[in-house]
Amino acid sequence: MKAEFINPILESTINVIETMASTKVVMGKASLKKGIRVWGLVNGIIGMASQDLAGNLILSFDKESILGIVSSMLGEKMTDITPDVVDAVGELTNMICGGAKAILGKIGYKFDMATPVMLVGQELELCQFSKAPVITAPFTVEYGKFVVETNLYSKNAK
Amino acid sequence: MKAEFINPILESTINVIETMASTKVVMGKASLKKGIRVWGLVNGIIGMASQDLAGNLILSFDKESILGIVSSMLGEKMTDITPDVVDAVGELTNMICGGAKAILGKIGYKFDMATPVMLVGQELELCQFSKAPVITAPFTVEYGKFVVETNLYSKNAK
Repeated sequence: MKAEFINPILESTINVIETMASTKVVMGKASLKKGIRVWGLVNGIIGMASQDLAGNLILSFDKESILGIVSSMLGEKMTDITPDVVDAVGELTNMICGGAKAILGKIGYKFDMATPVMLVGQELELCQFSKAPVITAPFTVEYGKFVVETNLYSKNAK
Repeated sequence: MKAEFINPILESTINVIETMASTKVVMGKASLKKGIRVWGLVNGIIGMASQDLAGNLILSFDKESILGIVSSMLGEKMTDITPDVVDAVGELTNMICGGAKAILGKIGYKFDMATPVMLVGQELELCQFSKAPVITAPFTVEYGKFVVETNLYSKNAK
């Protein structure tokens, strides 16, 4: 995983959540993910692919953070993980990946996006079939916490 | 979903499982997926993406089918869903998607592959963030059953 790949993803995460939820986003320290436990309760996953690049982007929200973010997005107080909330996670996953695609495209790393899938559940386990390491970065908003993870890598890198 | 997309995926599924597990694969009738329940216990998901196409391919095995298939692949009796079995599901997901990519590429539908993720769990729920319908097809092998699902679609289709 090149820092060139992770930084645009983190930058896009902050841009999208701050814009969509009108809330300050504070990023913690990114690190190598250990283990296969999914961090949060509500999760969005999207595949990224080109002749050069392959990997996944995963957003994982705790209940408080996603209810706060979606309440702010929709202008309506959400108190449960409804289909609308799950759908909003798909939309955020798409937008964050799209933002990262735009930034990476400008520095010569092009890829196309699959479509998001969303998973809800505590203590889910998700394995990656890839030799690339998974980088995980924690974020805090006024409502709660979420993490962003990716194993995007270049198939052509030496 | 065009039949042009689904048939190569089903053909590749049969090719890969029959070759890798040396077992006869019988396909049932494909249909529109209803609901969000994940069919089986051990699941592989991979994103497909190009400027034209986007979607996911999902393999979902019951315990009996995947233990039988992987035992046959590895030449060693597997009795539990170990990390090796989960890894084999990632490999099968990659191979089936790669086979479909080859067939679809020959008829002008090109895409690149993300990397597989694998999920283990009963009664998982997985939502798709896509307007495309999900097609599901059931398969039977001597050991048990599995399904293949996809929502691959053309962004440029009218």
